[in-house]
Amino acid sequence: MPSHLPFTLSALREAYAAGTSPVDVIDEIFARLDLVNDPGIFIHLRDRESLRVEATALGAYNPDMPLWGIPFAAKDNIDVAGIETTAACPAYAYKPTKDAFVIANLRAAGALMIGKTNLDQFATGLVGVRTPYGAPLNAVDPEIVPGGSSGGSGVIVGHGIVTFSLGTDTAGSGRVPAALNNIVGLKPTLGAISASGVVPACRSTETVSIFALTVDDAYAAFEVARGFDPADAYSKPLAHEPLAAPTKPLRIGVPDATTIEFFGDTIQQAAFDRDVALLKAGGAEIEYVDFEPLYAIARMLYEGAWVAERYTVIEDLLKTDPGAIHPVTKQIITHAESMSAADAFRGMYRLAELKRAAEPMLDGVDLLCVPTIPTFYTVADLAVDPVTPNSNNGTYTNFVNLLDMCGIAVPTAPRSDSRPGSVTLLAGAGQDALIAAVARGFEADCARRMGATSHPIPTPAALPEQPSDQIELAVCGAHMTGLPLNWQLTDLGATFIRKTRTAPDYKFYALAGGPPARPGLVRAEGPDTGSVAVEVWSLPKTGFGTFMAGIPAPLGIGTIALSDGSVVKGFICEASGLKGATDITQLGDWRAFLAQEAVTA
Amino acid sequence: MPSHLPFTLSALREAYAAGTSPVDVIDEIFARLDLVNDPGIFIHLRDRESLRVEATALGAYNPDMPLWGIPFAAKDNIDVAGIETTAACPAYAYKPTKDAFVIANLRAAGALMIGKTNLDQFATGLVGVRTPYGAPLNAVDPEIVPGGSSGGSGVIVGHGIVTFSLGTDTAGSGRVPAALNNIVGLKPTLGAISASGVVPACRSTETVSIFALTVDDAYAAFEVARGFDPADAYSKPLAHEPLAAPTKPLRIGVPDATTIEFFGDTIQQAAFDRDVALLKAGGAEIEYVDFEPLYAIARMLYEGAWVAERYTVIEDLLKTDPGAIHPVTKQIITHAESMSAADAFRGMYRLAELKRAAEPMLDGVDLLCVPTIPTFYTVADLAVDPVTPNSNNGTYTNFVNLLDMCGIAVPTAPRSDSRPGSVTLLAGAGQDALIAAVARGFEADCARRMGATSHPIPTPAALPEQPSDQIELAVCGAHMTGLPLNWQLTDLGATFIRKTRTAPDYKFYALAGGPPARPGLVRAEGPDTGSVAVEVWSLPKTGFGTFMAGIPAPLGIGTIALSDGSVVKGFICEASGLKGATDITQLGDWRAFLAQEAVTA
Repeated sequence: MPSHLPFTLSALREAYAAGTSPVDVIDEIFARLDLVNDPGIFIHLRDRESLRVEATALGAYNPDMPLWGIPFAAKDNIDVAGIETTAACPAYAYKPTKDAFVIANLRAAGALMIGKTNLDQFATGLVGVRTPYGAPLNAVDPEIVPGGSSGGSGVIVGHGIVTFSLGTDTAGSGRVPAALNNIVGLKPTLGAISASGVVPACRSTETVSIFALTVDDAYAAFEVARGFDPADAYSKPLAHEPLAAPTKPLRIGVPDATTIEFFGDTIQQAAFDRDVALLKAGGAEIEYVDFEPLYAIARMLYEGAWVAERYTVIEDLLKTDPGAIHPVTKQIITHAESMSAADAFRGMYRLAELKRAAEPMLDGVDLLCVPTIPTFYTVADLAVDPVTPNSNNGTYTNFVNLLDMCGIAVPTAPRSDSRPGSVTLLAGAGQDALIAAVARGFEADCARRMGATSHPIPTPAALPEQPSDQIELAVCGAHMTGLPLNWQLTDLGATFIRKTRTAPDYKFYALAGGPPARPGLVRAEGPDTGSVAVEVWSLPKTGFGTFMAGIPAPLGIGTIALSDGSVVKGFICEASGLKGATDITQLGDWRAFLAQEAVTA
Repeated sequence: MPSHLPFTLSALREAYAAGTSPVDVIDEIFARLDLVNDPGIFIHLRDRESLRVEATALGAYNPDMPLWGIPFAAKDNIDVAGIETTAACPAYAYKPTKDAFVIANLRAAGALMIGKTNLDQFATGLVGVRTPYGAPLNAVDPEIVPGGSSGGSGVIVGHGIVTFSLGTDTAGSGRVPAALNNIVGLKPTLGAISASGVVPACRSTETVSIFALTVDDAYAAFEVARGFDPADAYSKPLAHEPLAAPTKPLRIGVPDATTIEFFGDTIQQAAFDRDVALLKAGGAEIEYVDFEPLYAIARMLYEGAWVAERYTVIEDLLKTDPGAIHPVTKQIITHAESMSAADAFRGMYRLAELKRAAEPMLDGVDLLCVPTIPTFYTVADLAVDPVTPNSNNGTYTNFVNLLDMCGIAVPTAPRSDSRPGSVTLLAGAGQDALIAAVARGFEADCARRMGATSHPIPTPAALPEQPSDQIELAVCGAHMTGLPLNWQLTDLGATFIRKTRTAPDYKFYALAGGPPARPGLVRAEGPDTGSVAVEVWSLPKTGFGTFMAGIPAPLGIGTIALSDGSVVKGFICEASGLKGATDITQLGDWRAFLAQEAVTA
């Protein structure tokens, strides 16, 4: 096990395939931990011997297990059987007998759980220092805050000591630490990863999240971690989408000049402008949009009734042992005591209204791109004011779960002062694959290190193209523009693409029967006969069955060769249907035939 | 205007087409009101002269306006410009300057708003007597309660004085009065009808509803009343579905023997058993299901946090003029004062869990059929105990909006004691058309009067069949069961239907090229040549485009004639593709060809 191996999924799998043992990886993890020497990262680090035993038990390398021998860490509000779950509150701690659903999924795929990481108590905070266990140090710069609430999980990945880690995210806890530690933070669609065995913070609007050094690693871990869990009332059966390259230019919304906010950090602003320019250079259409409706939603998370969700978690403890709760955490959460059930419903009405107000903007773009954080705060800043920097850090994260959007924070090139760059891409529920695919673009386009490691970010492999949801169809008769059956296309949402002609070896007939008169397009078996005018229409694949159901014999849909050598689906005609048909190949165009008929009639 | 004309949509439109004037209809309405002589129906009845002016202004009959000259009434928690909205609380009253969105929709279609009807104050109740305006009398039997909260709207339609009326429905206010007045109560999917201009009761879980004498009339009014309204944060853009006959036997869930509840009313039980037997005789599969999960949800509406939604509506009034609120209403709603925001969120968690628990049952049926009410209560019963009978009346209605289901209450044959029979059909959001189509079956199958009128319920016209979402496809080669391309069908969710053969005039070829070897099925142009074995598969129409995209030339999809004389979509082959092909017509089966090839190889 070379000590300089990056612990990315591909590097580790390559090493395993070449004979490295996961026991060696465990030993290397402990060597790296010794070097980093930060006691604030883990609340519970498993002992090396038990990990060596578990690694040995994996047996021979099994490449079919997607996370075979892959080390990860879990935020200490996620249950691991036999290890205390503390949520960074010793008085709250309990020892679960069962792995959380998500931990069980990861372990079943061969992953090795190394330890439970430090967090802002009860996952309340975006700074990472609201913990009685001694805050971890930021992996790239110990003077800036580690980020939270999933601080330890962000830092351990930032150091490259595990391949990925689990956080949780309500207000931005799975994204802010990613920006601060130069790593990827994947915040899935709500309900994609089960919350069974996770200490809730804000149950209706939170999710387990994933940190990794690369987008591909985060997405690979997400694909294993996710899954419908009937035991979690907020779990949703969501479709798995493989990563694929978008096939059309994306419209990307970015905060406009009036509503973008960097709290005076012009370096961060310059970095963000540069990152948006990259998206534009990559073919995206940038729309500068008013973020005020989103900020209004963001304010509801802590100022509105949702803080009462946090209250439900610690209510008993507040009564029995209030001193056990971190003073800042207590101050934030007890705000809920003054709020009535009526206030909660008024908050929901307000949220519904704000969502409605944001809809036109959100419907007008494919995704949003925001700075993950508006600026950087130091540990010293937090000592002076423990709340304002925390709130400011949530500028671009707080509204996301209330809107049921998914998000991915991805490092960009370092800022001009060498601090990490980061943007977050956001899209509607279920579009996790889309934003991950776009995020990969930032890995291809910048020279930087992964996390705090010395390893350059590898250029991601090319993705397969997203399968189109459209099918092109050549029509040569009554389905053409303005003719009697054109509505069969337009009713199904088809759009006109272009006029062209078939390859030169077709014969063209006016079939017997009608009205409406119907053409028969038949490929000739011999030399060039004639080329026929066609219109190519693009039809949503989902509408094709309905279209097909309306096509009578002897017509059918097959493959048509076009004059430019390409092929397209289109109308064909069975040979048996030509009885009584008139050969109109020399006219070469259905409209010419119709004109001729009109004259004859 | 003959005084015996039923005010159904079809009867009125026929009369209008034959020359009746809407002014005559207005006069007839006032004549009928005089006969009924119930001052409790309307809180505000418009004066006859202004209605005659409005009717005259309609001009000549315009059959293109779906509600031209059709009279309706609106519950007095729905704004009509220039008329006080009271919500049955004089101290709350205000005079709107604008019609509610739904009223504007109906008037734009030609409907005539006759008056604002009485209700249980703030739409809180299912009995119709919690009003300071003097309760209306039940239309069919003045001793039983009129039903609520949309009492006046139910009674006015029960008397056949208007074609339809608007109610609102949270707990069952749009269904219980229907059962009690022998009429139809259509409670749409939440969000289908805008709530702009409607006094909220329980804003997150309520809807405007429609009463009418027949299902068709209720559905026709619904089609006009509905529509997306961006100004209502709970409005949803839902697809319009025309009424259509279901094409397959429906699985209908009915409360099982342990959980069905009639509070001792064996006559109601017998009527319901008879109604379920009718559904079964009509081809439905009846599933007896455990209703306890639904009852647990129902209990949350008044016992849980949702009563705080009602509190938000009257909070100001409670502070300034508590005596203005009906004592029973006040008692119910002020329960919310003891509930915190944390309680509200705990209630939502509990609801999410109960929904999850009910899902397997609900997923296992197409719709539910329940008694609309478990039994009948008299006005005298309510005087003794104003709460228990009200709660009991909500047995089969309270859970519906919390589950986001749509429902329609439809009269069935009279019970053995001549009181009206009624069942409610319930289905998931957006299935309003499905349950309305099933409800029509009860109109065809029983001899009864409409409401309290002397008019027999007309037999509804036959409906067009619902367009299938499947397409049948005949395959004759590698797509057949067990052969190499069969996955292209099964991956798209296709199911095997049957084996059969083509008509006898086909020729069958093994095409040149491959692997995989591909067959070509070509209809012969002359006398019988051969019949070919095919498998018929049923493919979701939405998957057909994807299937089609994978079919290479010279194959295509066209129409195949089968041996039984029917036709089905299936593989055809362009004549040009037969070059080098082997005629295997005499084998008549692709598997026979494969077997022969295996031997040869």
